[in-house]
Amino acid sequence: MFAKILIANRGEIALRVARTCREMGIPTVAVHSEADRDSAVVGFADESVQIGPGPPQRSYLNAAAVLQAAQQTGAEAVHPGYGFLSESPDFADACESLGITLIGPPASVMAVLGDKTSARALMGKAGLPLLPGSLDPLDAASARELVAEIGFPVIVKAAAGGGGRGMSVVRDPARFDEEFRRTQATAQLLFGDGTVYVERYLENARHVEIQVLCDGRGNAVHLGERDCSVQRRHQKLIEETPAPRLPGGLAERIGRSAVEGALAAGYSGAGTFEFLVGPDGGYYFMEVNCRIQVEHPVTEMATGIDLVQRQIRIAGGEPLGLVQDDVAPRGAAIECRINAENPARGFVPTPGPVTQFVPPGGPFVRVDTHVHSGYVVPPNYDSLLAKLVVWAPGRDEAIQRMKRSLTEFRVSGPTLHTTRDFLLSMLDHPRFRNAEHSTSFVDELVQTTTEQQAGD
Amino acid sequence: MFAKILIANRGEIALRVARTCREMGIPTVAVHSEADRDSAVVGFADESVQIGPGPPQRSYLNAAAVLQAAQQTGAEAVHPGYGFLSESPDFADACESLGITLIGPPASVMAVLGDKTSARALMGKAGLPLLPGSLDPLDAASARELVAEIGFPVIVKAAAGGGGRGMSVVRDPARFDEEFRRTQATAQLLFGDGTVYVERYLENARHVEIQVLCDGRGNAVHLGERDCSVQRRHQKLIEETPAPRLPGGLAERIGRSAVEGALAAGYSGAGTFEFLVGPDGGYYFMEVNCRIQVEHPVTEMATGIDLVQRQIRIAGGEPLGLVQDDVAPRGAAIECRINAENPARGFVPTPGPVTQFVPPGGPFVRVDTHVHSGYVVPPNYDSLLAKLVVWAPGRDEAIQRMKRSLTEFRVSGPTLHTTRDFLLSMLDHPRFRNAEHSTSFVDELVQTTTEQQAGD
Repeated sequence: MFAKILIANRGEIALRVARTCREMGIPTVAVHSEADRDSAVVGFADESVQIGPGPPQRSYLNAAAVLQAAQQTGAEAVHPGYGFLSESPDFADACESLGITLIGPPASVMAVLGDKTSARALMGKAGLPLLPGSLDPLDAASARELVAEIGFPVIVKAAAGGGGRGMSVVRDPARFDEEFRRTQATAQLLFGDGTVYVERYLENARHVEIQVLCDGRGNAVHLGERDCSVQRRHQKLIEETPAPRLPGGLAERIGRSAVEGALAAGYSGAGTFEFLVGPDGGYYFMEVNCRIQVEHPVTEMATGIDLVQRQIRIAGGEPLGLVQDDVAPRGAAIECRINAENPARGFVPTPGPVTQFVPPGGPFVRVDTHVHSGYVVPPNYDSLLAKLVVWAPGRDEAIQRMKRSLTEFRVSGPTLHTTRDFLLSMLDHPRFRNAEHSTSFVDELVQTTTEQQAGD
Repeated sequence: MFAKILIANRGEIALRVARTCREMGIPTVAVHSEADRDSAVVGFADESVQIGPGPPQRSYLNAAAVLQAAQQTGAEAVHPGYGFLSESPDFADACESLGITLIGPPASVMAVLGDKTSARALMGKAGLPLLPGSLDPLDAASARELVAEIGFPVIVKAAAGGGGRGMSVVRDPARFDEEFRRTQATAQLLFGDGTVYVERYLENARHVEIQVLCDGRGNAVHLGERDCSVQRRHQKLIEETPAPRLPGGLAERIGRSAVEGALAAGYSGAGTFEFLVGPDGGYYFMEVNCRIQVEHPVTEMATGIDLVQRQIRIAGGEPLGLVQDDVAPRGAAIECRINAENPARGFVPTPGPVTQFVPPGGPFVRVDTHVHSGYVVPPNYDSLLAKLVVWAPGRDEAIQRMKRSLTEFRVSGPTLHTTRDFLLSMLDHPRFRNAEHSTSFVDELVQTTTEQQAGD
């Protein structure tokens, strides 16, 4: 096993990874920006290296600085967490060339799956159902032709996109050209790559994703599904497993598709295959995330499998050691993301000091967080304060437990607002309760509320 | 279901019960002593009533004050937690006569099982294996005759005893009379009842207990076993499930015995059947605890069953709704009790302020506690600060997780000492690691260490 692991991330996930390393007896190196000098993982890890100032471009996205810290401390492997460098084939390449193991799939696999068009092409070949759309990058003229064929609504997506950024739904054919050009420009700005592609947009769809584990030697299993349909502008807010009210056997079929896709791609490590499920029960491959997901704890609570430990063991050369029948998810798990955002003002981030931070406890409750009373939320990064995850034998009971835990959560600061009360209202909404929601549920609700308020 | 529940306890268990009530939508009343005025459950519960000054005899053991609080607030049921009034048949009787439901078995069942001699007689009749000894209270003369017959070592126990108090092991026949009289006197002092009985003492035994759930209508299941052999002077320090290295099938046989015993007693609610297991695999009934146990979370983590919720539902008249095949424990769970005690000074309690209290987190870690930074440990009660419980697929991994979590635990105060480092040394001890320990493990170790220190 690795003699030392560098954690190339921050916040809750850095601490999450460090804890598993400690349990495995592997020393850790935390890298951090100036803004994160006093963060929990810096105190927890065995060593720490400051790699740059607050802005992520100059610290957590600075591959050279991260690799220098790894070489300087003698780290044999790098755990990239999620976001930042976690899905950069260039970073994966750089690690490989320095003889450092990146805990994730090989750079070549990451490159193919990271480009949404080549991922679609590969998965289509592997037999996974795709929504009608382009398999190659498109210019405006051929895009116009294509959408005339597949029909509206369509979604224009950045090939290099991810995390819900760089996409645009077009319902009105007259607006297509403009939205196509706008998405190209956004993609160029956000990802340094203006390539976009087009798909038929599925209305009233649910976001269902499959967690897979593979060892790159032909062994692959899925760990059940997660339903992440409660999203605001493609940002997940609530995730749960199992996906509620899917037609019988569907989750298992999607799971098998994901495993077939993973094997076709030569995947290794932990990965997530994202699908859309239509109201008629049809399911369609969307994309693969080549990293640990924010929402991985719900799968851990249901399966009892430590995903980060599995990532590390696979990257260290161990065979998977699991067959599909070993995976027996139990009960229902839900995660809520508590963000430092103000729902009343369009979810604007509210960085600043956290005066009081008392997370909930009790049976079957897990809180993944790096925050504590006295913490100051830096303005440089995402606004995630904590992930609150609960488990129960069934969904209704899990929702009750989540409501109890959210209500118990004490988090306040002079300028701080959080999504806590907004999450509570989602949990109580009949559409969520009855699992009749889709990925547009929150946006519709927010819009309605805003319109009502404007009308008041 | 109950319109309101009064929680007749304090500390972590009071908060534990209140959380489940909240999830069930049942309003709660916290009763508290003056010393516990600012305790977590008082802030958490829907109502609170101060029932007396700090000393437990004048507050948590004051049945009249508790019942007055219940009547005054309109509580329909009382959850007694563990300790205090939880196993008092008189309190159970008083509740019954006021039409208040005590969440636990009926007073009559509690009376039979609470007296160790009548419990032994009943369980012997039900076919549970007993150690040779008396089935009736004994005077000194007949006790002498009995021990001559069954042979030494023997253990003299208070019939009304519990929680490891009021018992004495006698190895030297010449000391029997003196120890018998001393235990009678202690029993009179501690429990107001000097009745004692005598059993053969089993050397190198393990403490294995079975969690049962029964509805008093003929439905009963067991939820697997807990091994609580890591004890100091009969006080449990570490508890785990499953019991490691038992002969194949033994735990299941003991479990079936416990269910037979529970049915024979007409038990209802959650209860624990305690057994001793000899080095030859023989097992012997010890006693029944008619309440929730301190160590119940290990069973919850392995089975996914919320025991407090089940207690409340059964007391509310619901049928059990579980058959034995529904209970499928998974993996291994361990609990460590973090006490405010100084192991270097004979485990003397160290009450006083807690300046820093940062419990560990992460996957599969649960902390049941009422303590926070700024809390002051009152001198009046037991010294339990927190129960740290972890789960993993197997025992070795659970031990690693426990070590990581214990190491992460930050708890300090000007006069505070804790058992944390002592627990860490137990977890690392080869006898514990190899599951070659017995109930005398800790006492032998402490004695050896003390002797070594004295010899230094």
